[in-house]
Amino acid sequence: MKIGLIGLGKMGYNLALNLRDKGHEVIAHNRSTDKIKKIEGEGILGAYTLEDLTGSLEERKVIWMMIPAGSEVDNLIESLMPRLNPGDILIDGGNSNYLDTLRRYERLKDAKIDYVDVGTSGGIEGARNGACMMIGAAKEVFCYLELLFRDACLENGYAHVGKTGAGHYVKMIHNGIEYGMMQAIGEGFEILEKSEFNFDHKQITQVWNHGSVIRGWLMELTQKVFEEDPSLETIKGVIHSSGEGLWTVEEALRLKVPAPVITDSLFVRYRSEQQDTFSGKLIAGLRHQFGGHGVEKL
Amino acid sequence: MKIGLIGLGKMGYNLALNLRDKGHEVIAHNRSTDKIKKIEGEGILGAYTLEDLTGSLEERKVIWMMIPAGSEVDNLIESLMPRLNPGDILIDGGNSNYLDTLRRYERLKDAKIDYVDVGTSGGIEGARNGACMMIGAAKEVFCYLELLFRDACLENGYAHVGKTGAGHYVKMIHNGIEYGMMQAIGEGFEILEKSEFNFDHKQITQVWNHGSVIRGWLMELTQKVFEEDPSLETIKGVIHSSGEGLWTVEEALRLKVPAPVITDSLFVRYRSEQQDTFSGKLIAGLRHQFGGHGVEKL
Repeated sequence: MKIGLIGLGKMGYNLALNLRDKGHEVIAHNRSTDKIKKIEGEGILGAYTLEDLTGSLEERKVIWMMIPAGSEVDNLIESLMPRLNPGDILIDGGNSNYLDTLRRYERLKDAKIDYVDVGTSGGIEGARNGACMMIGAAKEVFCYLELLFRDACLENGYAHVGKTGAGHYVKMIHNGIEYGMMQAIGEGFEILEKSEFNFDHKQITQVWNHGSVIRGWLMELTQKVFEEDPSLETIKGVIHSSGEGLWTVEEALRLKVPAPVITDSLFVRYRSEQQDTFSGKLIAGLRHQFGGHGVEKL
Repeated sequence: MKIGLIGLGKMGYNLALNLRDKGHEVIAHNRSTDKIKKIEGEGILGAYTLEDLTGSLEERKVIWMMIPAGSEVDNLIESLMPRLNPGDILIDGGNSNYLDTLRRYERLKDAKIDYVDVGTSGGIEGARNGACMMIGAAKEVFCYLELLFRDACLENGYAHVGKTGAGHYVKMIHNGIEYGMMQAIGEGFEILEKSEFNFDHKQITQVWNHGSVIRGWLMELTQKVFEEDPSLETIKGVIHSSGEGLWTVEEALRLKVPAPVITDSLFVRYRSEQQDTFSGKLIAGLRHQFGGHGVEKL
């Protein structure tokens, strides 16, 4: 299939190579031209403007966006719309909030442009050699594109999980679960680290990865972290987040689903970004007020 | 190696078969005789009394206990001690609290009996075909027994993680992490279930198990659960616990490690065992007191 791919970040760049290797004709565009030049060196056709990109595509154009979530997606859609015709297909393979996806779907529906959302997991390695994709689309549009997804993914690594919006929804929940799982792993190893036994974390991850209940890709990555830095001396414990954990919590609140673990995982991340806390200062002050307990002064 | 195995529950029974298949001479004892008869039917020598068991073993007896944690272990040790000699080795392969293990180690040290703790993971399937074992023991004792562990486990599925106590400690943390991971999975699927999309949970677990970041054995088991009961109509959401999550939280408290996710996972289990809560009644009453908010009457 001939497709236009917009966004040559780590995910998009590797997805382009992956699809090319499977025999698809990829035309690649990126905001900055250096990445286009680089991918042209790999034998992929570059498009330096959106006009070039859309002009190179056939009837029922297929354009796959792999760009950061947020207003960039809206801006790109606005720039693309004058160049698209009814029946064309626009895919958002990024980590968009599903509510944005639903809004964009409605906007594009008026122009009879099909909108597809793909939650993509498996990291850079997956994008290059076989990703995991959760796809939201009208049935007919999914069937039209299925070969593309099959080729981009590991065997059984893609699914049409529902109508447009469903793909990003499932990816959001995937990441929410990931937050909780990672936090549980982190807490466990901090207890191991602080205990009187002089544990070898790398050894423990290795044994856990061979037959334990908690074996899995995250534990394999934990092993890699400890292989590279056994005492984590080079890494600060600051954990940023890019939205999907927050959206999972927002969704839990909307649906009134108690989700303490995912919520705590998010709050732990926020705390990790703070040097000190206003709440901590206040509570220390209160303990001083009622009990004369010492306060650490700045 | 010739070993005595005490406790023919699901784990012990399958471990006995596993070790026998690998060429070890297993003599099996159990409190109730029906299990002994059953395993004799599999061609394993049964011992109907502890005397028979210890009498059948050679110099430097090796006895592997696979019985429930708690006072049963202490009682069994007391019954065995008169029949053991200096240099004999006693293995606790159950889920004992590591503090109990340290206490028992001290007690047996006076009698010069070597005490080994084995945290066993991988479930029944693992016990039968290759488990994952975290072993705490003196170096010499571990080396003496290593072939036994190698044969009981998957390749690379065992490790000498430290001195006696370390094995149960690492297993405790393993289970604490497991609590958190399972709770994260549970919360994620409850949000999916309550959402307006009509998701097929089985399909989602299947795609997540092929290339996603959260793939792993727990997600494979989640898939099995949904394959057997797509809407969980036959299962009550009551989650019991057998100690290791609690001990992980106790250890976090002792070491002052913030572990909100593992702690919440434990409290969620306790809540699941309650029909109604005293705290809930009180808070409903307070809302009525200050704001006249309605109270649901019993």
